Amino acid sequence: MSTETNFIQSVVLDDANSTLVILDQTLLPNEKVFLRLTSQNQIWEAIYALRVRGAPAIGIAAGYGAYLGTKESKAKTYEELYEDFKKVKEYLASSRPTAVNLFWALDRMESRFKKEVGKTPDEVKSALREEAEAIRAEDEMVCKTIGENALSLLKDGMGILTHCNAGAIATAKYGTALAPIYLGKERGINFKVYADETRPLLQGARLTAWELQEAEVDVTLIADNMASIVMKEGKIQAVLVGCDRVAANGDTANKIGTSGVAILAKHYGVPFYVCAPLSTIDLNCKTGDDIHIELRPGEEITSKWYEKPMAPEGVKTYNPCFDVSDNRLITAIVTEKGIAYPPYTESLPKLFE
Amino acid sequence: MSTETNFIQSVVLDDANSTLVILDQTLLPNEKVFLRLTSQNQIWEAIYALRVRGAPAIGIAAGYGAYLGTKESKAKTYEELYEDFKKVKEYLASSRPTAVNLFWALDRMESRFKKEVGKTPDEVKSALREEAEAIRAEDEMVCKTIGENALSLLKDGMGILTHCNAGAIATAKYGTALAPIYLGKERGINFKVYADETRPLLQGARLTAWELQEAEVDVTLIADNMASIVMKEGKIQAVLVGCDRVAANGDTANKIGTSGVAILAKHYGVPFYVCAPLSTIDLNCKTGDDIHIELRPGEEITSKWYEKPMAPEGVKTYNPCFDVSDNRLITAIVTEKGIAYPPYTESLPKLFE
Repeated sequence: MSTETNFIQSVVLDDANSTLVILDQTLLPNEKVFLRLTSQNQIWEAIYALRVRGAPAIGIAAGYGAYLGTKESKAKTYEELYEDFKKVKEYLASSRPTAVNLFWALDRMESRFKKEVGKTPDEVKSALREEAEAIRAEDEMVCKTIGENALSLLKDGMGILTHCNAGAIATAKYGTALAPIYLGKERGINFKVYADETRPLLQGARLTAWELQEAEVDVTLIADNMASIVMKEGKIQAVLVGCDRVAANGDTANKIGTSGVAILAKHYGVPFYVCAPLSTIDLNCKTGDDIHIELRPGEEITSKWYEKPMAPEGVKTYNPCFDVSDNRLITAIVTEKGIAYPPYTESLPKLFE
Repeated sequence: MSTETNFIQSVVLDDANSTLVILDQTLLPNEKVFLRLTSQNQIWEAIYALRVRGAPAIGIAAGYGAYLGTKESKAKTYEELYEDFKKVKEYLASSRPTAVNLFWALDRMESRFKKEVGKTPDEVKSALREEAEAIRAEDEMVCKTIGENALSLLKDGMGILTHCNAGAIATAKYGTALAPIYLGKERGINFKVYADETRPLLQGARLTAWELQEAEVDVTLIADNMASIVMKEGKIQAVLVGCDRVAANGDTANKIGTSGVAILAKHYGVPFYVCAPLSTIDLNCKTGDDIHIELRPGEEITSKWYEKPMAPEGVKTYNPCFDVSDNRLITAIVTEKGIAYPPYTESLPKLFE
């Protein structure tokens, strides 16, 4: 049985109208608004204001932004167009100065531009459109393949716990940790998903629960501190999470709280799977100790989202954004090139061969 | 070195003015308001509206309420006064029909009333005042002794993690899990406390962080899912929690999330201590499996406290109020009669000898 799934695609080019259609993630979960962006200024603002979020989705938006921004140029020669392209690139790069995928995508667009040397402005613009589309298509394929590989580890009817949002709206389509859930749904393989709300920024409540509900996946929202009881009660047969960075030994940095979930999974004998595009595996980073953990403002804990502050004024806080799950807690790392099992110092390099 | 500690006492009798002074906990952490209550109606409302919370504090308020309510009576005889007392008792008992400590305290007040048979109304009223004061004083002594015993397990400068609020404002004074911290402070033994915010009702953020800050204890607020990283970083040398009920085998029910903290503590080799008045140990309850877990409305997760809902409309939720920490995860159970160590099936009954 195959079901048409209501996929949310958060960044799509409406080619006929030279318009980038973006899901405004800042309005979730209360409003589902798609913005139609035509100018580089609008795309810059969408990235800056976090209307697009998720590393792959930001890269895709930047690629399309570089194309659409350059398309506006009235340049008559390749050289003139390149000057205009560089201005667009620099401008878009300023939208979120810490987003690695943003620079990666813009650099890739520039490489493509340079390959088209000698072509007419129209030909170059067309190549840029092709390249931006390739960035999107490749991300979709990476996510889909991760989904296929992860699906091979799961069985119909399983309860799956996830943390934060490694979903469709953060990528071209499918997401990473949520990819097997969507692929399964297309094939009539259904899971019962439990989503950690993921304090303090609530990506699980606002985004994961929202996109799974939109796709008519069976999803139940819990507070982070309920992960233990749902495992104890036998509701969870697998944990699936995304990641920000995987070290050479398999230590994995992901949203704060992930390491706690990994420890609980180990305690209860539940497999813990990390879904990781190859681009997140950093063999130059030896262990998790080498991964810098960003600290964020305490207001995210004490007052963000709230009607009034929920902690005493001036209270000290500690608000690390990520934590590192020890490789011994990770059952497998699922990539688009296959599934890596421990020992990761051996299995991860093989994925790059 | 001894320091005067700024203890918050949440329920105190102002005897000269026949007034019960209650900290309005519903206004915390944003306002510190003490209510001056003189009538049984005001005391009923304070219990009903959760202005007083914490099982011991509710019992203490009910005891004083029974005294002050009966004191208003114009009865001329013991028998007439008893009729009035019973009305007061029945009325106060209706304020929070599931609070066991409420009934326990009111029954105890009635037993005292009956012991005074033949006395004048004034003598009986005086006895009721004495009994209410005894309930308060005994709770203070229980808390203080738990604090003494727990303090023997700790060392100056330790980092201590706690979950939910088992603090001074839930009891006569000192609290249970927080008692060694306050006692330590009085003696110049200082700890660095980390308070889990304790979703969804935020008792850690609103109450624990608040009362420790008021007492000038070094407290740092974290989201629940940060308990793993603070342990990993070596910031925590002991976990101290309260409890709602301890089974004969040591399995302990406490606020949702406690079992997860216990598992993390085991993983990181951090001692996990439960502070438990003898009244919470139920030898008739064989194991944690016999403890019923209350489920509460999902709105506590999705929309309570927030400016607007933070989860998609209609999303399924699972919101258990408590969980059970397995006895194998508990280093020791600290009571006013001493410290019980595993095996608890042997050590717990000895406390009652």
